[in-house]
Amino acid sequence: MENGHKSSATTKILDKVLELLDSEGVFGTDRDQPVVVFKHPKELTTEIPDLDLEAPITDEKQLWDVVRRIIQHCVKTSHPYFLNQLYGGLDPYGLAGAWISEALNTNQYTYEVAPAFTLAELAVLKRVLNLIGFQNGDGIFAPGGSIANMFAIALARYKMDPTTKNRGISHLPPLVMLTSEESHYSMLKAAHWFGVGTDNVIRVKTDERGRMIPSALVESIESALSAGKKPFFVNATAGTTVLGAFDPLAQIADVCEKYQLWMHVDACWGGSLMFSDKYSAILKDTHRADSLAWNPHKMLGAPLQCSILVIKEKGLLHQCNSAAATYLFQQDKFYDTAFDTGDKSVQCGRKVDAFKLWLMWSVRGQTGFARLVDNCMDVSRYFMSRIKEMEGFILVLPEFQCTNICFWYIPPSLRSATERNQEWWSKVSEVAPKIKERMIMAGSLMIGYQPLKHRNLPNFFRLVTTCHPPPTTADMEHVIKEIVEKGADL
Amino acid sequence: MENGHKSSATTKILDKVLELLDSEGVFGTDRDQPVVVFKHPKELTTEIPDLDLEAPITDEKQLWDVVRRIIQHCVKTSHPYFLNQLYGGLDPYGLAGAWISEALNTNQYTYEVAPAFTLAELAVLKRVLNLIGFQNGDGIFAPGGSIANMFAIALARYKMDPTTKNRGISHLPPLVMLTSEESHYSMLKAAHWFGVGTDNVIRVKTDERGRMIPSALVESIESALSAGKKPFFVNATAGTTVLGAFDPLAQIADVCEKYQLWMHVDACWGGSLMFSDKYSAILKDTHRADSLAWNPHKMLGAPLQCSILVIKEKGLLHQCNSAAATYLFQQDKFYDTAFDTGDKSVQCGRKVDAFKLWLMWSVRGQTGFARLVDNCMDVSRYFMSRIKEMEGFILVLPEFQCTNICFWYIPPSLRSATERNQEWWSKVSEVAPKIKERMIMAGSLMIGYQPLKHRNLPNFFRLVTTCHPPPTTADMEHVIKEIVEKGADL
Repeated sequence: MENGHKSSATTKILDKVLELLDSEGVFGTDRDQPVVVFKHPKELTTEIPDLDLEAPITDEKQLWDVVRRIIQHCVKTSHPYFLNQLYGGLDPYGLAGAWISEALNTNQYTYEVAPAFTLAELAVLKRVLNLIGFQNGDGIFAPGGSIANMFAIALARYKMDPTTKNRGISHLPPLVMLTSEESHYSMLKAAHWFGVGTDNVIRVKTDERGRMIPSALVESIESALSAGKKPFFVNATAGTTVLGAFDPLAQIADVCEKYQLWMHVDACWGGSLMFSDKYSAILKDTHRADSLAWNPHKMLGAPLQCSILVIKEKGLLHQCNSAAATYLFQQDKFYDTAFDTGDKSVQCGRKVDAFKLWLMWSVRGQTGFARLVDNCMDVSRYFMSRIKEMEGFILVLPEFQCTNICFWYIPPSLRSATERNQEWWSKVSEVAPKIKERMIMAGSLMIGYQPLKHRNLPNFFRLVTTCHPPPTTADMEHVIKEIVEKGADL
Repeated sequence: MENGHKSSATTKILDKVLELLDSEGVFGTDRDQPVVVFKHPKELTTEIPDLDLEAPITDEKQLWDVVRRIIQHCVKTSHPYFLNQLYGGLDPYGLAGAWISEALNTNQYTYEVAPAFTLAELAVLKRVLNLIGFQNGDGIFAPGGSIANMFAIALARYKMDPTTKNRGISHLPPLVMLTSEESHYSMLKAAHWFGVGTDNVIRVKTDERGRMIPSALVESIESALSAGKKPFFVNATAGTTVLGAFDPLAQIADVCEKYQLWMHVDACWGGSLMFSDKYSAILKDTHRADSLAWNPHKMLGAPLQCSILVIKEKGLLHQCNSAAATYLFQQDKFYDTAFDTGDKSVQCGRKVDAFKLWLMWSVRGQTGFARLVDNCMDVSRYFMSRIKEMEGFILVLPEFQCTNICFWYIPPSLRSATERNQEWWSKVSEVAPKIKERMIMAGSLMIGYQPLKHRNLPNFFRLVTTCHPPPTTADMEHVIKEIVEKGADL
């Protein structure tokens, strides 16, 4: 440590943490290191028996030894070959911001206890509102995209009928939410919690690329109305979880306008494209929505959790959620209590999620973000074009709009089949889980796989690139090589 | 740094972060440093103009200079004189755990991406279930106590009628939740989101100490039933936010049994007493509840956010919340997918909140926690007895059950009043805000104040001790001295 280091007890512990993380290669992008040293649950319990908290660890050396073994058995999500989820490596400045706000351990509910962080949150929200095109809007950070979407549902219902806040919904006909069949399952979970019920989530049909069909949306709304139900919320997805599809925002906005329905955009995954000159056109109509959710902790590499909901109508968030607790939100404080943002939230205490994004943004600016997003998209396009021409790879869609590229790998033994019937596809369905197991046991690569049952598609791989660590075309060649090797004898 | 230090770019940034935090005394318990260097929002914007993200900060030196100024204008929540909220300083091992899990940046939804953290979460939940007395229970970490309470409401409603998950609640009579008039406002916010409505939250009367009156609970239930409504959820509070009151758990359990209602215990604040031999008797009947929420990020000093919900009935959490997304929770994985815990949650991605508590618990053990809790309670008892005998201080209640001590300070000019009438009390009500402003501007002490309108009590101070940094009797003398000094001329 440099001068100024006072070596408090806490600082010594944290110094040790930094040394451990560094020596275990947690921040490293060394491609020769394994992505994961996988152990099954029972093996891992045997390997690190101290995990069970049976007795305190009294010896300092033993403690750090246990912690080292835990770190060794974590997945290295910052590894260039971790391409398993919609998130991956960290922006190092984002992590710096996270560590700082963790150390200052405060709550984002009042200016009183989080003065600088409150201003940082406002600054970030202002920039995001500007990018989305909400001129005089509002926003809030939520603990994850699912809860950000729930905020939007609460706003939509409150806007439709403010008396639902105090009266509940029992005086209303059954409420209906509309979302595409490719959209995120958080809509179902939210419908349950909100008392709407999962049966009242209408899964609107999508086209061949996975985008909501506006005419199908109209039919769904009409059919709900005829059934005496009350639609109140339409969710458009900008970047679906599996196929990365973007719903046609302008056309959905037209429908919402016609039927006077709240239009929300779940841009949790695809929202980061907003920074790109090359790829942001797909988001140009976000300004027509009423609210939009975006997770900078996904593609952009902010540390988890970093989720934003932005809203077009200023003031609504506070009206909708406020409970005006007198022990927190006293109006006789000596400072401008308009800066106490907590009562906009359904939460009481709220982590400082804004500062990590603030720090990343300060360093990189919008053009820096643009370069990172462009690279991450460009490299995924490279992968897509490479496997299009390669024997043994079949793309699930002819093109993909986001960085998730979905494909089957057909091992040599299955390639010569005369007929691609049910039996053949069921063999193909076993390929991805088997290759994945081999890759994980080797620690050589992590990518996801899944079926899409409503499209009758058996297990396929989904490779996802994110901004950090910046992926390269060589990384994509590694993916191809790994799959071909691990699947050679299947 | 010691050997093993590879000085990756990330490590250099994090090294700088640690140096900054250390040199700015963030971890320090130096009582001569200010708790806060307060600036009003506009002043702070002027002082740190770079907060607005107008242009990227391209110079490394400038960047760290801005960050340093931000840190300087944060509230030092780890300062011994930050006694403002129900949280305060950090357990240094908790912070170490937070930094580690932030650096590994993973999601607590599947064993696949969080193997070691999944086992750590299970280990912590097992210990907590044991302490609460749920023999074969289940649990989950939630992003804050409000959402932990929401989980309990979801479970209660689902248990009452599982068809509410798919049908919603429109086929039911108005649902009713019962909670004490001293309980946390999260019940109101949740009732709104759940479609129950805030009017259907019955605020049950409390006794002179702020504890729910069981006979009043019965009356409230009967009256809801007579009105054709359907009570389904009773919230008992173990440690209310302002007065620190503990509801009589056994008697409430009797009522819930009789009417077959879900009994939840909001022990977000008071739950940490479970570790104390001396003070845990007040929690001895928690095993009779159906669920309990506890925030180790409050009294115990785990870093924010660290909230746990435990449930008596195993399996219910999964049944209630599952949506079985095929891209995450495939059943054809090669490991035991019973270790994939994500589908128990309403969230999709979930921060690793368990590991920081795991690390604290590993080092301190239950006896270590007990010592910390006992000290924090003992010191608050010292403060209570000291101001009982002091001129100018009036306790709001004769005794307090938790570490929040509520009191008025009567400055000399008001002491000689012949009659303590409305006018006198309204003058008293201005005292706490004024003293607080002076203390904050001096950076000498932060404690909270608030009125309690339903008890017709004007602004009073609420001093709260927590485990970290361990409070001392000398700190309590400082509080008394500060208040007396700052209020001398009022």
